[in-house]
Formats: sequence, structure tokens, C-alpha cells
Amino acid sequence: MGQAKKEILALNAFSLKNQAKLSDDVERLVLRRRHSFGATSVLFYEHPLHVVGAKGATLTTADGKTYLDLYNNVPSVGHCHPRVVEAVSRQMGLLNIHTRYLFDVGHDYAERLLAYFPAPLTNVAFTCTGSESNDLALRLVREATGGLGVVVTATAYHGNTTAVTEVSPSSYKTGAPPAYVRTVPPPHPGNYGADVAGGFAAAVGEAIAAMKAEGIPFAALLVDSIFSSDGVYADPPGFLAAAVDKARAAGGLFIADEVQPGFARTGTHMWGFARHGVVPDVVTMGKPMGNGFPMGGVVTRPDLLERFASAFGYFNTFGGNPVASAAGLAVLDVIAEEGLKENARKVGAHIVERLAYLRGSCPAIGEMRGSGLYLGIDIVSPQDGSPDPEGASRLINALREKQILIGAAGPLGHVLKVRPPLCLSIAQADIFADAMEAILKR
Amino acid sequence: MGQAKKEILALNAFSLKNQAKLSDDVERLVLRRRHSFGATSVLFYEHPLHVVGAKGATLTTADGKTYLDLYNNVPSVGHCHPRVVEAVSRQMGLLNIHTRYLFDVGHDYAERLLAYFPAPLTNVAFTCTGSESNDLALRLVREATGGLGVVVTATAYHGNTTAVTEVSPSSYKTGAPPAYVRTVPPPHPGNYGADVAGGFAAAVGEAIAAMKAEGIPFAALLVDSIFSSDGVYADPPGFLAAAVDKARAAGGLFIADEVQPGFARTGTHMWGFARHGVVPDVVTMGKPMGNGFPMGGVVTRPDLLERFASAFGYFNTFGGNPVASAAGLAVLDVIAEEGLKENARKVGAHIVERLAYLRGSCPAIGEMRGSGLYLGIDIVSPQDGSPDPEGASRLINALREKQILIGAAGPLGHVLKVRPPLCLSIAQADIFADAMEAILKR
Repeated sequence: MGQAKKEILALNAFSLKNQAKLSDDVERLVLRRRHSFGATSVLFYEHPLHVVGAKGATLTTADGKTYLDLYNNVPSVGHCHPRVVEAVSRQMGLLNIHTRYLFDVGHDYAERLLAYFPAPLTNVAFTCTGSESNDLALRLVREATGGLGVVVTATAYHGNTTAVTEVSPSSYKTGAPPAYVRTVPPPHPGNYGADVAGGFAAAVGEAIAAMKAEGIPFAALLVDSIFSSDGVYADPPGFLAAAVDKARAAGGLFIADEVQPGFARTGTHMWGFARHGVVPDVVTMGKPMGNGFPMGGVVTRPDLLERFASAFGYFNTFGGNPVASAAGLAVLDVIAEEGLKENARKVGAHIVERLAYLRGSCPAIGEMRGSGLYLGIDIVSPQDGSPDPEGASRLINALREKQILIGAAGPLGHVLKVRPPLCLSIAQADIFADAMEAILKR
Repeated sequence: MGQAKKEILALNAFSLKNQAKLSDDVERLVLRRRHSFGATSVLFYEHPLHVVGAKGATLTTADGKTYLDLYNNVPSVGHCHPRVVEAVSRQMGLLNIHTRYLFDVGHDYAERLLAYFPAPLTNVAFTCTGSESNDLALRLVREATGGLGVVVTATAYHGNTTAVTEVSPSSYKTGAPPAYVRTVPPPHPGNYGADVAGGFAAAVGEAIAAMKAEGIPFAALLVDSIFSSDGVYADPPGFLAAAVDKARAAGGLFIADEVQPGFARTGTHMWGFARHGVVPDVVTMGKPMGNGFPMGGVVTRPDLLERFASAFGYFNTFGGNPVASAAGLAVLDVIAEEGLKENARKVGAHIVERLAYLRGSCPAIGEMRGSGLYLGIDIVSPQDGSPDPEGASRLINALREKQILIGAAGPLGHVLKVRPPLCLSIAQADIFADAMEAILKR
């Protein structure tokens, strides 16, 4: 899997070998980048984009072209949304301080956010990123259970800290997570047969039993509730419940990573876990929470925070500051006032409908999965239906030539990942479907 | 030490027991806070502050009072500095995207920042917080050395992730860091005699030898280059060099945590490590980098990033985005154009001079340490000169009554910690010194 992941990056990323073909401005920036950023910074596309502006679901490049953005789920209510820009600008000029003083906007935001969660999830701890959120979640469940072991899916990604990388098998280029991290295949009939719920729960149970047999006490089941990096697995709604029960029966807790599915993206609920009718012990948030203002959060039960706080001092300098709170409030306002949950449902369904029709004449389009504006579209060999990562990469670069930005997911990188800003219109969805048709029928 | 730390928090923090004395608006916010934030959120002062605005080195509360801010080192170029507010507002409205596309401001900032570092520190990886920076630093040194062991000071604080908490003994309320983290007393004649450099280096060497004897391979020496949470240790300049040599001779690397001393605070150099004439292998940054915009960074040698990137995929969603870059550029501009390094030197020296004079008649003022606008002032028993944490806490609350905000540091909490925005004026420094005089002579 590490090897497969390395190939995805190689397929979909810029390589210095192509450099001669670049335009002057891009070549100059690529050279500067090589000097400053070194080895950790991956650049998208054979021909990287030099971006100068963004609005709604579009990006503009230095050569004056406009690209339709089906990739970016951070500016979730739309790039540079004026409400968020105004809220951040205004608050930046008034007060930006940490949470050891009292200020109104922080409490307004905490209460507005918590109102979206079921009991007993009544406390929030603010962080700055999804990685920090998942790191804190691991600390909470380990402190509460006395356990260390975590069960995750095989190609999971939960963030970039030391501890969170250990529960992110997709980040390993060599080696593998430690023994206290166990993986299960993602929830799909191909792995578990028709009873996905039962099969997935059984696999979780076996992973827990295996770690316990080796003397590793179990702490938690941790999943992205739409299984983004595994290739997007959303159906049938409810399938998660049996696995969560299994984890709890084994004395563990359940962490729902809502960094990707959260904030209305699934089109039916505010959170991915809600589609499955489960109530997590810990919920983690990040990416879209501030529409690009760096912020994250952990919502949990008061007893878990109390237990943790009795053992450790915890403070997050920037977490929950007035500007983050103002950004977060604006995001919640825009989601509600612009009906973005319903828009995600409607436009996502339209994309599925168009591509399902197209599949009749384009056998490269395989299974489609997902919910709302988080879709995974398998790109497969027209001959035998097998996964086709090279085809997916060609498609991604061909879509870029048609000024449409999109990415890939899954262990092989053959799953086209549709996760645009939630304001994507039907007309923009049609531009994407038309482009898919033009490319795949070529 | 865990116990001592617990007491600091108890001394200096709000407790629900005092609630009856609060004003209506503060009481209402405290109650809301209890419901939303739960156990992890510590609030300053017996009478918490309800803050509504901030400017320069002052905060304004809901009751219309203005407080002089000697505590906050995040809004380092001044609260709500118009240059930073303007830069963030403008860029937020134009483009805010991740670093897998090219955009000019990110490269402008990376180059401007790197110009402040000596060779061979030519690469930067952007993060969102000091915690993320130190977490990445640990990953870099462990990957490069194959070691695990880290030497830190006894009351060190480096951040809040799982891995960084392990190297932050001050965060433990119960228990202690794992065996692969070893502590040494902070660099002070009280611990090492007159030869602080030699004594500190010897202690580092012994800690490394002790971990190696237990089969733990050594990775790095990690210090905050002004030893903030230990109680502020800055002199004599150069004392760090021998300890760094010792770490390298043992096959390890040196991480300079510049989250607190960095960005001109010491008044003589841009970075705390530079005062000691050493060149770190990894430098970590956070707090003041964006004057409150959440951003951090790791500056290091290209070979360390390459080694790490060959083993792990690393990406930081918000790190180095255009808005963070714009904020960072504005901060560097303001530091240079307003002469904040020189101001920190001058105003810090003035505070030391005034308090040294005051000490003649106020024996509660003990040793003063630090550099520029990072000062540690021991508060001691006038009778026997022993550390007086209760006296420090009374002083902090008395200063709050005089509308001056300040905090404490050190294992016992008896070190008054002066670290205001770098724009603090001589007149404001005099307000502080006058208040100290009025309180201590009472």
C-alpha cells in the first residue's frame, strides 16, 4: 500500500523532469520553490498551476484562465466568500487574543457549533487544524480508556502529527504503522459481501481481538465517516453502527473524523456520522470549519475532557481565538442562509445522474459512491473493469487542460474524487460532466 | 514538579469558588464557558477579564477600562496592527489556497523569512502552530538519526500534541515523560556554579549517556533558546554552544525552539539561538509569526527534509497559504520599519534599570534575567530571599487591579514573566515600573 501511494503521488504530481515544457512564470516559481521548500512540498499536475485569484467554485491563473474547482473542500462555502472575508477582517481589527480571557464571539460560536451536535456531546475544545484535532482526540480516548490501540481503515489519512501519522497508513511510503494500530479494509461489498455493516463490524472485532491477544489494550475505533482517502464509502447509511457497537463492547470509544465529511458536505446531514445514526464519543473537525482560516475543533463529552485535564495541562494558543470564532460563525451562517446542504445534495445527485448516463457509453467509468458533494468515481479499464490508476491520472491531467481541477483517492489512486466548494451550481456540474464526456469518448 | 505546576495554575487561575464576586457580564460569560468549554479551558485571574478590544500594547474590557499588556507575545508587533490587518483582509479577498499550487506571495514570504537564517538552514516547511512545528521537528530528527531520545529542560514547554507533550515536562500534572525523554536543570549558576556553559553541557552529556546506557538511541537536544517556561535564562550569551557540541558529538541534532524568543524579541538578534552563536539543525517557529494569524514554520537543512520525505508523505493543509504568507510578510515589514528589535532592546533595558533601582528598597524583587522584551523577575521572600510563588500571584492580581496584565513562569511560579508586544514604549514601561513600586512598597 505504501508503494501504491507512492505511485499515486508520482502519477498526479509535478516532476522536475517535465520542467522544460513550462511557461516562464511557472518555471521561475518552480525554481524558487525548489530552493525554499525542499523535499516535503508536493506540487500538483505535470503543468503546475500559477494561481492568482479565486471566487466561488473557480480559480484564476496568471495567464488569465479560469478553472472550475472540483478539488478544494477547504473553501467550502466558496473561495473568498465575502461574508467570511468581512467577518475575519472586522474581527482582526478589533481583537485577536487567546481564550484565557473572556470575549463574546468565542462563546457565541461555541454555542452555535454545539447546537449541531446530539447529547451527550456538549463540550468543545478548539484547535487550529484537523491534525491537532485528531491528535487531541487520540489523547482523550487513550486517557479515558487506559488503552493504546486504535483501529483505522487500510488507506486512512487523519493528519500529520507524529501520533496522527501513526493512525494514517496512507502517509507511510516505507514501513507501516506500529503494532498498536490495526487496519481493516474499507466498508465495501468487494471486501465484505452484501452485508457490509456486519462484515465491517466483524473485521473491526477481529482487529481488536488480535491486538488484545498481543497484550495491547484497545482505545478506539477512528474513521473518517465518509472514508475519503480509502476511496469514498458512504452507503448504505447506517452501516457504521455495528462497528461502533463492536468497539464499545470491547471497552473502546469511537472517534468520528469529520474533517472531510463535516459541515454539510454529505448533503443530508451536517456530519457524516449522523448519516449512520451513531453518536460518537469524540468528533474532530478541521478543513472547512473557517473556510480557509486555520481552525479546528474537538467536540466531546464533558467527562472525557475532565479526565484528560486532570492528567495534563492543555492549551492551544490560537485555538478558538476571536477571529477564528468570527470566521466559524460566518461559515455556519452561510451554510444555513445559502442552503448549501441542500445544494450539495441536489448538485451531487445531478453529477451522479449525468455520469451514470455517460457510463452507458463510457465503460471507463466504474462504480460511483458518495453522498452530496463528496463523490468517488472509480476509473476502470474498459476491457475488464479493473482499477486503472494510469487512466485516472490521464483523465485528471486532461480535465486540467479543459480547465477543471480534480483529484484522486483510494489505495491505487484510481478513484476520481469530487469534492468542490458546496456552492457548485448545476451549470458548473454540467461543465464537468460535459468535459468527462468529451475526454472519455475521445 | 507536576505538583508545583498544578499549584501555579491554581494560584494564577480563576476558580469557580470566587464566582459570587463577579460582575454580571463576567458571571454570565463564565457560566456559558463552563457549559461549552468544559475542563480543558483555564481562565486567567481571580476576576477574569471580559475583553472587547485591543490596540498596540493595550487591551480594553467591557467596562471601558484599558489594560497595559505585558503578557501577550503573540500580537508581537502590536495588537490589531493595521498593516497586518490590511494584509490579511486584502489577501483573504483575493486568494486563500493550499501550497500544491504555485502562488507568488508564498514564495516571496519563504525567501524573506529564510534570508534571516544562516547557512545551511535554507529550507522551510510551513505549519499552523508552534506545536505542529515542534512535532514536525521531532519527526525530522528522529528520521535523520534513527534515534528516539530527546533531552529537554526540567520545566520545558514545547506544545500540545501527543509527541510534543512528551518533551514538555511542565504539561504533566501527574506522572512524567517517557524514558526516552530526559531532563536537565535549566542553565543557571544555582544549578551549575559559575561555569554555566560547562555545567549545562555536562548535564546534557550525562542525560545522553544515561539514555544510551538503557538502550535508547539519542536523537536531539531540544531547547527554547530563552528557556521561557523554566524561568527565562539568557545569559551569558554563548552558553548554549557547549551543550550543542555535546549533543552533536553524541550523534544527535539540535532543535532551537524559537516560538517564544524568535522574531526580534530578545532585542539583539532575530532569533534566540543567534545570541549564543550556534547554528541549529532545526528551528521551530509559531506564536508571533503572523501576529495572531495562526501560522508556524520549521526551518532546516534540505537533507533533513529529504530524508523525512523519503519515508513519509507530509502535507499541511493550511500551512503557508497565501493569507498566512501575507500576514508573515507584514510582520517582517513592521519589525524592520518600526525598529522593533531595537525598541525591544531599549525598553527591556529600561525596565531592568528601573526595577534594579527599585530592588534597593524592595527586597521582594530578586534576580532579573532575560534579554530585550523577554524578562524573568524572581519574586522572593523579603526575609530570606527564597522563591515566593504566593507573593508572585498576589503581585499579578494586584497589577491587574492597576490595569496591568502580566504572568508567571518557572517550576514554582515565582518568576514574573515580562513579554509584552514589542511596540511597548518607555512611557508604558514606566507605568509598569511605577505600579510595581506602588504595590511593593505598600
